[in-house]
Amino acid sequence: MTRICLSKQEFKRRRDAIREQMGQRRLDGLCLFSPTQVFFLTGFAFIATERPIGAIYDADRDESTLFVPLLEIEHAQEAHVDAVRTYSEYPGTGHPMRGFAGILAGLDLDERRLGADSDGYGGGFGYEGPQLSELVSGEVSAARDLIEQLMWIKSEEEIALIRESCRWGDLAHRLLQRYTAPGRVETDVSFRASHEASMEMIAALGPDYRSMRFGAFPATAEYQGQIGVRSAVPHSLTANHVFREGDILVTGAASEVGGYLSELERTMILGRPNDAQRRYFNHMLEIQELAFRTLRPGARCCDVDRAVLDATEHRELMPYWRHHTGHSLGYGMHESPFLDIGDQTVIEPGMVFSIEPGIYVPGLGGFRHSDTVLVTQDGIDVLTSYPRDLESLTLPA
Amino acid sequence: MTRICLSKQEFKRRRDAIREQMGQRRLDGLCLFSPTQVFFLTGFAFIATERPIGAIYDADRDESTLFVPLLEIEHAQEAHVDAVRTYSEYPGTGHPMRGFAGILAGLDLDERRLGADSDGYGGGFGYEGPQLSELVSGEVSAARDLIEQLMWIKSEEEIALIRESCRWGDLAHRLLQRYTAPGRVETDVSFRASHEASMEMIAALGPDYRSMRFGAFPATAEYQGQIGVRSAVPHSLTANHVFREGDILVTGAASEVGGYLSELERTMILGRPNDAQRRYFNHMLEIQELAFRTLRPGARCCDVDRAVLDATEHRELMPYWRHHTGHSLGYGMHESPFLDIGDQTVIEPGMVFSIEPGIYVPGLGGFRHSDTVLVTQDGIDVLTSYPRDLESLTLPA
Repeated sequence: MTRICLSKQEFKRRRDAIREQMGQRRLDGLCLFSPTQVFFLTGFAFIATERPIGAIYDADRDESTLFVPLLEIEHAQEAHVDAVRTYSEYPGTGHPMRGFAGILAGLDLDERRLGADSDGYGGGFGYEGPQLSELVSGEVSAARDLIEQLMWIKSEEEIALIRESCRWGDLAHRLLQRYTAPGRVETDVSFRASHEASMEMIAALGPDYRSMRFGAFPATAEYQGQIGVRSAVPHSLTANHVFREGDILVTGAASEVGGYLSELERTMILGRPNDAQRRYFNHMLEIQELAFRTLRPGARCCDVDRAVLDATEHRELMPYWRHHTGHSLGYGMHESPFLDIGDQTVIEPGMVFSIEPGIYVPGLGGFRHSDTVLVTQDGIDVLTSYPRDLESLTLPA
Repeated sequence: MTRICLSKQEFKRRRDAIREQMGQRRLDGLCLFSPTQVFFLTGFAFIATERPIGAIYDADRDESTLFVPLLEIEHAQEAHVDAVRTYSEYPGTGHPMRGFAGILAGLDLDERRLGADSDGYGGGFGYEGPQLSELVSGEVSAARDLIEQLMWIKSEEEIALIRESCRWGDLAHRLLQRYTAPGRVETDVSFRASHEASMEMIAALGPDYRSMRFGAFPATAEYQGQIGVRSAVPHSLTANHVFREGDILVTGAASEVGGYLSELERTMILGRPNDAQRRYFNHMLEIQELAFRTLRPGARCCDVDRAVLDATEHRELMPYWRHHTGHSLGYGMHESPFLDIGDQTVIEPGMVFSIEPGIYVPGLGGFRHSDTVLVTQDGIDVLTSYPRDLESLTLPA
């Protein structure tokens, strides 16, 4: 049967791994506030607002506690936690974080050694509040990297979810390509492809499929404004573009399975590519293939980016270079480590990266494929199976 | 002509207001890292990732500087700023935040009085970095509230954008209601309504309409899993629900115009409401109307929530109470101040709130309307014009 969410055993294994790391760092308690880290410990996926939410892990007791506003009580009780504690509201009549400190005191953790992913709730949405270190008498040490590093090596279950995500991102992209034609509006095509792919995905995954992200459609394939000369702006935003013959198109497709994501991006040409388009496309493709060859267990992240940078320089394309080769991903859209000359992390089996070196020629357009790649024992497994060659990505006009 | 984005003059007025506030606090420079506050100063809407982005406002010179990764250079140059400074990548070979500190030094601000919305880039996405206060020799004081409070009173341009947003949220919701029927899947109906409303919106607003948010469709109307007994879970997430006769449905609709949002939520019944559904619906409606009557300039935010709580208590509904009456909104989905018993802020003309007291009966369902309301000189203007009565919200089954 297709895996569509993480098992209870997976969260047990995570707690064991966290406890071991806490032992090495001599931490008695771990306080988490970022949605990603709370999910890692508890499987609780929530909409972060002005209302602080946190999780506590007590290593001695092997017990986890979720601290949520009352409105999340039933929702939190479905998570993989031993206890759910609530407060009424934020701002409320007493600051919720005092309640959080009270729970730590009740667990006898307030005078002991605490690690935290941030020194209090991060907020936004108009939240203001004290730092955790102001609320407890024990020492609070920065421990965001503890879970972040546990996230580096994906488990079998996580890999299964990412594989499944790739499958539906691929379908959404196929539909996006099919429906793109001169005279159509980008948003229209993005909606149509995302809608159809999502309905296929829901039908295939069955009635137990749930979204673990706020506002996310199950599968999406979109143009984010990277069309025509705007394709040269890597992080453009969606505009009201009408496709024209000759447009360079840079796409993005993904889907969400059990909270896990994948990344698939393609450069397509609407109509017969001209010489310049063909030349830069081929440079981009060859550099991406070089990155595939360089990525392997035992190499360092920076080695892959160094190889890409050397090739870019050798081809005299540095004026068109804009960003590093890729990033890790999984539950997070971007995670560490990064395929970047500044990242010395040694690559290990089980890591999952985007491979997406790009070339951006102002006034002409941008060229970037992104694939999701799993590091295996002796090389890589490209999880996104969408064609990458120019012929397959040339659209009739 | 319909306003679809903020004008250059609006950003000039914002800088003047910021400079005045900085004068009162004796700040020479202001450093901003949150996407909301960077947008407020510069109009730069961007995808936040591992790569730090910041803005600096120099009060003496009346000059703003955007600090972005190279991949955002062309995009940042379109913002309302005097200078764009870039770094190559994160993590890169030298930490980008040292470059940020270098810019402060170049402006002679590094030894002067700085305010900051947070003590360094907030990150997530695997970012790690030093605090701003570690990088400069001058004093860095917490100043997140400076811009947050300037956001409280919406300008005429902002109100025009929020009004326009309401218009398209209303349309999307009308389509959502029209397409909802027994046997249909929630995601299918959400997609269809959002797609059609977005295309109408794009056609009406014309070719200059741009998305200012990452991954956002122009208009959306959705079910977020609050269907049937799950409607009793206020912040549920989208599931694969097939509508059935008797379902209570809690919806959400919005659209984005020039970065600005609105909020429209309705409780609907699929088929003839039973007595319990009718009773709780009417309680909810009457309590929302009480909130409308209580919200006026000169009252305090807590007064509105107090009135709602008293009415909820009087009706013996406290077991079903889960959250405060509402929040401010505009560029942010939730902003301060809050209609909450703990918020003493005096209500002023130009503030925009959601009014959304809810009743959540475990095992039966949830009841919540949310409307977007502008505070006027002598009362309120309900900007969302969607029907609120049970008859209008009863769907054929």
